Amino acid sequence: MSKEAKTTYGIHSLLSKRWSPRAFKKQSISREILLSLFEAARWSPSAFNDQPWYFIIGNNNDKTFLGIFETLVEFNQLWTKNAPVLVLSCGRKKTQKGDPNNSFKYDVGQAVAHLSIQATSHNLYVHQMTGFSPEKATEVFEIPDEFEALSVIVIGYLGDTAILDPRMQKPELAERERKSFDEFIFQDKFGKKSNLLTD
Amino acid sequence: MSKEAKTTYGIHSLLSKRWSPRAFKKQSISREILLSLFEAARWSPSAFNDQPWYFIIGNNNDKTFLGIFETLVEFNQLWTKNAPVLVLSCGRKKTQKGDPNNSFKYDVGQAVAHLSIQATSHNLYVHQMTGFSPEKATEVFEIPDEFEALSVIVIGYLGDTAILDPRMQKPELAERERKSFDEFIFQDKFGKKSNLLTD
Repeated sequence: MSKEAKTTYGIHSLLSKRWSPRAFKKQSISREILLSLFEAARWSPSAFNDQPWYFIIGNNNDKTFLGIFETLVEFNQLWTKNAPVLVLSCGRKKTQKGDPNNSFKYDVGQAVAHLSIQATSHNLYVHQMTGFSPEKATEVFEIPDEFEALSVIVIGYLGDTAILDPRMQKPELAERERKSFDEFIFQDKFGKKSNLLTD
Repeated sequence: MSKEAKTTYGIHSLLSKRWSPRAFKKQSISREILLSLFEAARWSPSAFNDQPWYFIIGNNNDKTFLGIFETLVEFNQLWTKNAPVLVLSCGRKKTQKGDPNNSFKYDVGQAVAHLSIQATSHNLYVHQMTGFSPEKATEVFEIPDEFEALSVIVIGYLGDTAILDPRMQKPELAERERKSFDEFIFQDKFGKKSNLLTD
């Protein structure tokens, strides 16, 4: 089975090979490799170079891993228990100047994308989730008001689908799907198909 | 001059070579290459695969390019006029089910990161901006209420710094800077430095 993206226009293999599995090996990630993922996030761009991303890293069932795990919805607990690393991503709601930062979520999303692509270069897989309780995470990790918990990120090496709960095996093996280009690239006005598609 | 990221832990060259210049060549981007950037964005992950990203693409001074250009703050107009492509990124505020989507900005940011990395693979550079008027963009491109204009993205080949307004030349040549790891990777609680940094 290949989950590689079925593209019309070729894209770099680091982008086409990335997908979000649920079956992970228990195998640990070396410290150097794990830090390279956060190095990638670190060099991501952000509005006014504010770098509004923060990561709480749980590794190999340590206290932080278990703390993040307990914020997850039950469905996500079923499969994440096998992974070696769970990360809670947070964003800073204000700029360094103290004004509201309207793009902090956008910038944290970018940083996590950079992290994911670095992960792919190490044959690691990343699965991001919003299925967790930000309130619980705020309590467990004493997150100050100025910051917001945004996602939980699972990182690990690809495991055998057979280890999954049966209802998760079908999506794990299914082809990946995306909208067609004419649904999201436009010109002249919102909703009008780009000429790039017809030229 | 190299703007390559000064990393402690090695990262993939597609990530370390990416930066956000202001000096662009007038040189056009071929249709195939330009579409590969949006193909990369298309295969980005999103919460519940909602794919909340939408792009209005201005190319080679066409009507859309000029429409996006007029939404920019004056400082950004000074340098973007040389670039071949300006893109307005938008996000959908609601999920496909009609509920508020708390991660639409995060997901659009990720899609633009994937676009940027595909651009780097073609030796293209991307500079994202929040220095534009979302209100004006909403009016010019008739963006419906359910969507929000998030960023303007400049795409092109790297140009000569000498073409820039003198006050932009210094940052264009300066070394890139980022926070240190202990400021953004934590364990046990928010703000407590990760053991990965001391082990």
